[in-house]
Amino acid sequence: MSLATVTLQATQSDAFEAIQNDALLSSSLWANIALAGLSALLFVYMGRDVEDTRSKLIFAATLMIPLVSISSYLGLVSGLTTGFIEMPAGHALAGEEVMSQWGRYLTWALSTPMILLALGLLADVDTADLFTVIVADVGMCVTGLAAALVTSSVAVRWGFYVISCAFFVVVLYALVAEWPDDAADAGTDEIFGTLRLLTIVLWLGYPVIWALGVEGLAVVQSVGLTSWGYSALDIGAKYVFAFLLLRWVAANEDTVARRGAGTGAEGSPAPADD
Amino acid sequence: MSLATVTLQATQSDAFEAIQNDALLSSSLWANIALAGLSALLFVYMGRDVEDTRSKLIFAATLMIPLVSISSYLGLVSGLTTGFIEMPAGHALAGEEVMSQWGRYLTWALSTPMILLALGLLADVDTADLFTVIVADVGMCVTGLAAALVTSSVAVRWGFYVISCAFFVVVLYALVAEWPDDAADAGTDEIFGTLRLLTIVLWLGYPVIWALGVEGLAVVQSVGLTSWGYSALDIGAKYVFAFLLLRWVAANEDTVARRGAGTGAEGSPAPADD
Amino acid sequence: MSLATVTLQATQSDAFEAIQNDALLSSSLWANIALAGLSALLFVYMGRDVEDTRSKLIFAATLMIPLVSISSYLGLVSGLTTGFIEMPAGHALAGEEVMSQWGRYLTWALSTPMILLALGLLADVDTADLFTVIVADVGMCVTGLAAALVTSSVAVRWGFYVISCAFFVVVLYALVAEWPDDAADAGTDEIFGTLRLLTIVLWLGYPVIWALGVEGLAVVQSVGLTSWGYSALDIGAKYVFAFLLLRWVAANEDTVARRGAGTGAEGSPAPADD
Repeated sequence: MSLATVTLQATQSDAFEAIQNDALLSSSLWANIALAGLSALLFVYMGRDVEDTRSKLIFAATLMIPLVSISSYLGLVSGLTTGFIEMPAGHALAGEEVMSQWGRYLTWALSTPMILLALGLLADVDTADLFTVIVADVGMCVTGLAAALVTSSVAVRWGFYVISCAFFVVVLYALVAEWPDDAADAGTDEIFGTLRLLTIVLWLGYPVIWALGVEGLAVVQSVGLTSWGYSALDIGAKYVFAFLLLRWVAANEDTVARRGAGTGAEGSPAPADD
Repeated sequence: MSLATVTLQATQSDAFEAIQNDALLSSSLWANIALAGLSALLFVYMGRDVEDTRSKLIFAATLMIPLVSISSYLGLVSGLTTGFIEMPAGHALAGEEVMSQWGRYLTWALSTPMILLALGLLADVDTADLFTVIVADVGMCVTGLAAALVTSSVAVRWGFYVISCAFFVVVLYALVAEWPDDAADAGTDEIFGTLRLLTIVLWLGYPVIWALGVEGLAVVQSVGLTSWGYSALDIGAKYVFAFLLLRWVAANEDTVARRGAGTGAEGSPAPADD
Repeated sequence: MSLATVTLQATQSDAFEAIQNDALLSSSLWANIALAGLSALLFVYMGRDVEDTRSKLIFAATLMIPLVSISSYLGLVSGLTTGFIEMPAGHALAGEEVMSQWGRYLTWALSTPMILLALGLLADVDTADLFTVIVADVGMCVTGLAAALVTSSVAVRWGFYVISCAFFVVVLYALVAEWPDDAADAGTDEIFGTLRLLTIVLWLGYPVIWALGVEGLAVVQSVGLTSWGYSALDIGAKYVFAFLLLRWVAANEDTVARRGAGTGAEGSPAPADD
């Protein structure tokens, strides 16, 4: 067996075992796999009687949130997207080996666009706006990944953190200042307001955990606790979010059906639309 | 030379040589490079007289299918996106070193969206719908990649396989239940029906090969045969698909030109459209 | 500490130190971080009085160009996305260890779509067209990455180079032959013409540097000079480009506001639009 195979597989198996031997850490991952699985089944059940095309589309898009989440946590738990990194000089844990759950950032790059897509469809924002916000969101996740993986300089770690937050500000700006007007025009401002608040409050938690947890200032030095912090936010920002959205869509098919001009959702606007 | 350079380059050169020394495996890759190159040239030739803007767009989009395919197979044949993994306990080949063509999953994440885009343009589906299906498709490919790369647990390998199939079901649902109506409205249902059938039948083959081949149950234990399985499906699902599509577009420019309201393809619907 | 951790971190720290000890190379990276940071601040300042929704959207999209650029150069300078590769037989530097700035290709896959998006919004091209061009652009960057990383065969390196150029031709075709008409219809042809020319001329420089620099024929054998070549092009193609665009948008809010039917930017075209 080649040297490369030995070393690359060693990381994966090491991480797999380290996670299995840490009940706190392990539970933070399996809890999400279980909840995401139950959410997916629940959402299929909730959507069984939905007739309207646009509502079915929102169901399909939202169903992917738990599917991506299961994939993300399976990757973490198997050690495929987990690794050990040695923190650079200047870090509170400098020279120590710290478990990095870098796969979280990678899969957020796929799951958070779905959340923004669901919000954007609900508020009926235009396609170019939605695309811009999604690119900013992907930029936020990718630079978060970079912040987690840099081991040569603590200054560069925080440099990436600041850039990631700058992308986040673009996303927040759209959610706070732009999309509410669109939602009001679309007549979906009540549910949009609830989901927007949930998203803003919970998403603000991620950079706080990064800053306080093992990857940042290491005020909290437990990998398991840091992991539960992210996992708890994921539960709210993903499954609770998706449940509230789909419950509303199922109960308001008519409102959803009546809209549909924006987001390029229908090429030919219905006459009643103007 | 650093240790990391030694190990990472060792894998690439090892894989490159192993492929060159296996005629069955090697031919499964080079056959596709040759066919993809010929297809690209043929498609440029077929499109030489196309005038209509929308038809030219479909030609440009479809031309990328063989271009992505050449890239994919060059990556495999050079060893860049091929590697050796040791299967986990519980796998039929447990403890053995198996060549993994993980690059296939990576490039499918780029090529299969182009196929769905071509089908979606043809059926004139709305942008949000198309985006959702493409995200599900990317989710399918990325979890397929994860399934191929996990070496710590055979259960997690199949876990990813199941999630990948769940994403596939979302794609199939759109192809089977939703897009045919759009295609009927667009007047393209005949060619759409042909291509849809081709796509559904061939795409169903990929998870079957995974399950039976070296990565899954290892009923077929030859890496070369497994690789030819994927390569044969690629030939049908990519080059034959693209050829049928472009032949129809070239012969039906008027029909293609008349559509164009959906998919955000034109902002201002033509008067004749309503 | 595991062997994998040692080797993977070794590359990052090696590259970090090698860059710090090479003033020419180092300055080519830090100059861009500084300029990108100043550009981002300048663009926020320039956009402070913009009122129109569509103009604000263009500002938000364009602001991401320097943000992605800072991320890219931070990745290079930290050694995270830099590495050492040994060139294959047949290469001018065969057997030598060459520093590869592979992260450039990765981040171009995120930054160049934003440039095309900005041009596309300006010219009011349709969504499907824009999407196709962006996919070709991503294909160009990804195959460029592959060309940089292949160490098993010099022929495959150039094979990827040719494919990458083929994707580039699709992008060029849209910029040269298709989008100018859209821009003329949108009344933005003057600024579009300037930016298009800037983009075409500068973008043509990248494959030339690749071919002449250390990764290609190695006519220029200095990693620092090659890096400055890319960095200089980036300055023109990113910050100068973005500055010219935003200066025009800030001065022509009315023109920007009047458009907005294409690119799915508004579902219901304004009556004045037809």
